[in-house]
Amino acid sequence: MTDSGLLADRTPLPSELDSRLRDHLTFLIEVDRLKTILRASPLAAADRRENDAEHSWHLALMVMTLAEYADEPIDVGHTIKLVVVHDLVEIYAGDTPIYDTELAKSQREREEAAADRLFGILPADSGRALRALWDEFEERKTPEARFAKAMDRFQPLLLNWMAEGGTWRTPGVTADDVRSRKKVIGEGSTALFEAAMQLIGEGERRGWARPS
Amino acid sequence: MTDSGLLADRTPLPSELDSRLRDHLTFLIEVDRLKTILRASPLAAADRRENDAEHSWHLALMVMTLAEYADEPIDVGHTIKLVVVHDLVEIYAGDTPIYDTELAKSQREREEAAADRLFGILPADSGRALRALWDEFEERKTPEARFAKAMDRFQPLLLNWMAEGGTWRTPGVTADDVRSRKKVIGEGSTALFEAAMQLIGEGERRGWARPS
Repeated sequence: MTDSGLLADRTPLPSELDSRLRDHLTFLIEVDRLKTILRASPLAAADRRENDAEHSWHLALMVMTLAEYADEPIDVGHTIKLVVVHDLVEIYAGDTPIYDTELAKSQREREEAAADRLFGILPADSGRALRALWDEFEERKTPEARFAKAMDRFQPLLLNWMAEGGTWRTPGVTADDVRSRKKVIGEGSTALFEAAMQLIGEGERRGWARPS
Repeated sequence: MTDSGLLADRTPLPSELDSRLRDHLTFLIEVDRLKTILRASPLAAADRRENDAEHSWHLALMVMTLAEYADEPIDVGHTIKLVVVHDLVEIYAGDTPIYDTELAKSQREREEAAADRLFGILPADSGRALRALWDEFEERKTPEARFAKAMDRFQPLLLNWMAEGGTWRTPGVTADDVRSRKKVIGEGSTALFEAAMQLIGEGERRGWARPS
């Protein structure tokens, strides 16, 4: 957590606003913080790391563009909702890089606490609705959640490919470690899993990932 | 346009990939550029300007959170698709700040050319589908497009409020100019239009926007 209070506390919204709407807007100001949470992945279009808001937008467009490769029929609109909210808890819990096994141990606990705090800003019914989407994404029990998760694992492959390795070059990580983290893509799309394996295989041949 | 070629030309995707998927992925790499297109609005959570990808994600979450304020019933999933694609053409056409009347004259022409170029990267059917969403957003003939546009005009109000004026302080712009640009919010949501007027009115009283 970067701050003990809400962003909106710095410049409180006018008190004459309808109180339910005021809570909605307070939440929508607070989530501006997602734009400051940096991921490990480098952008393809600029020399800096990606942030969670950009990443979430990219996944939304990927869902729309790649839905035809889903193994099961998916509701595209619903799948987009899942990716739009999937990283919100990192506003308070921070990003947990996929190759950081130590940080991963406390991830679930940190993110549950963050979800309680963040979705608690909203009117109860609105908070429950967004929380349900986050839970659905995490549980991966629906075709939409499995495809959303596949997008979340596939997107950094594109950035790492463009960076000639990127986070594949994390010390201690081998090409097989990368392959292992990408298995979950196959739960949503066999075609995209195969494409992922082609990208990693070619990256390994070029020396962008350490032979296992 | 920042570059004459495609981003993916710098590190071509493996040729053994299925050619249709390769075109989809080439497009999804190219759109990484949206993360580098800066808007006039300052972030609430950091001391820098917002980029188009972050902005588009923020609108998607606003659609989900504020749909109950729409004057007409909307398909939330479809409305999110509209906001996810609505600024893509700025990758080649650049951002046209709302108070820049000179740049606005050539906006339509620049954006049409950008749409042809960007959506043309995709397989024809996929390109047509995304182009149809962009056209729908621009034309504002559906309830979903009207609400999406309302979000696009409402979101900077929140950032400008947090910045105690932000782009309301653009030289030559008065509080009535700001009100005039926000009328389109009322085509999608009477309640949010009224909230916008309350924010601008209070901002004017505090000296964050120039009295008209």
